Amino acid sequence: MAKQRLFVIKIGGNVIDDPNSLSSFLDDFASIRERKILVHGGGKIATRIGEKLGIKPQYHIGRRITDAETIGVVTMVYGGLVNKQIVASLQKRGCQALGMTGADGNLIRAVRRPVKDVDFGFVGDITPGDVNAALLENLLESQVVPVVAPLTHSNGDILNTNADTIAAALAIASGSRHDVRLIYCFEKKGVLLDVNDDNSVITRLTESRYKELLGGNVLADGILPKLENAFSSIHQGVSEVLIGHAADLLRNTGYETTGTLITQA
Amino acid sequence: MAKQRLFVIKIGGNVIDDPNSLSSFLDDFASIRERKILVHGGGKIATRIGEKLGIKPQYHIGRRITDAETIGVVTMVYGGLVNKQIVASLQKRGCQALGMTGADGNLIRAVRRPVKDVDFGFVGDITPGDVNAALLENLLESQVVPVVAPLTHSNGDILNTNADTIAAALAIASGSRHDVRLIYCFEKKGVLLDVNDDNSVITRLTESRYKELLGGNVLADGILPKLENAFSSIHQGVSEVLIGHAADLLRNTGYETTGTLITQA
Repeated sequence: MAKQRLFVIKIGGNVIDDPNSLSSFLDDFASIRERKILVHGGGKIATRIGEKLGIKPQYHIGRRITDAETIGVVTMVYGGLVNKQIVASLQKRGCQALGMTGADGNLIRAVRRPVKDVDFGFVGDITPGDVNAALLENLLESQVVPVVAPLTHSNGDILNTNADTIAAALAIASGSRHDVRLIYCFEKKGVLLDVNDDNSVITRLTESRYKELLGGNVLADGILPKLENAFSSIHQGVSEVLIGHAADLLRNTGYETTGTLITQA
Repeated sequence: MAKQRLFVIKIGGNVIDDPNSLSSFLDDFASIRERKILVHGGGKIATRIGEKLGIKPQYHIGRRITDAETIGVVTMVYGGLVNKQIVASLQKRGCQALGMTGADGNLIRAVRRPVKDVDFGFVGDITPGDVNAALLENLLESQVVPVVAPLTHSNGDILNTNADTIAAALAIASGSRHDVRLIYCFEKKGVLLDVNDDNSVITRLTESRYKELLGGNVLADGILPKLENAFSSIHQGVSEVLIGHAADLLRNTGYETTGTLITQA
């Protein structure tokens, strides 16, 4: 029997921060007829609310430290405000969305990042086995559309986890039962051969080509973590990963994609 | 075939605001072996965070008006912070909790309260038909424990709805398939015959007795909305309603209850 098609779609803060982009993205998302999961980032609103609450962001060499106050804010904002606004908007569009964090239904467990030189605080690292694949399958089977905030849990604590990583973990966990396309939406049309030329999208990317490009120092630094997640997913049973513009979602769920399509070979 | 037993349990802000009470309540809740649903109120933390964010509460004759800023805060705090902390704590206790608002999975639709003399803002009124009973049944069947924040939805908006009313609506919606005991936990042992005597708990209450007590002006005003919800639930297929102390939860899920047990006759 052919596997069911499943789209695991991640949107970032740039879409969430702009009501018009978000609204038209949600129109498109709601109209996808195949099984689907939405993973969302947080946007700038968490920072803004944190500032208003008098919480000073702390960094270590450019990396954010999630202390107890900060995890409270992101739990409120990602798990509450952003997640529920998206869910209510999707419901309005007839999409049977169900908002979740990793704690809900034990969807995604994590390990709190071990303290070496620095304590990054309430940050969770996940491995694919940490996903409750049975619950996910049950929800998808019931026509429910999970809308997942970038939060995991461990031993009673909510932990902050990168949304790209969460999307990859959910895609990997669904791979044995589904033909999964993981779609990373961002503000460019795709992975660019020349970071200054928006029309230089690499339309197909395999790992051998990726290694060539890496060797040539062609790719922008910012895209590398997404590509690492992408190839890691491909190695673990995800059929395809697509990196593209949020506004191109519907084309990128079809055959004639405008973004960068990453496949095994 | 005998109906499955189901407990729909509501806790209020007084438990949520006190970490020790909440922790021991969650120990008890997690240990209940029958099917169960938890509905939680918000506690004072929403007011505190609203104040820090510079949002001034507005009232009309003592009743709170939920403007756009306020619904944002309660969505964050009830649907995010409080809900996810409870879910993570229950998961730690081995309880398969799944946090929800009424928007999630279209669990509870509502109608925004019509503007007459006053616009109460983002407040939702519900009727029993507004509950997605099929989803609820599917979750309970899958051993999932819904943890429900006091928020509903309508036409893309999140709405504020009284937690007692939500608990009653969920109990009523589950009544055709379950033998439901709706438990309202609060800070007294039960409904008191003499509001100044904590030992004057009315252990059994039927509607005829309730009307006698009402006629005699015996009952405290504060308990009347709970009792109205209780009898309305009993009329609509809920087997029993129990009003009791949060610390007595385990006794009140058994046969020898310490609170006020309300039945049809």
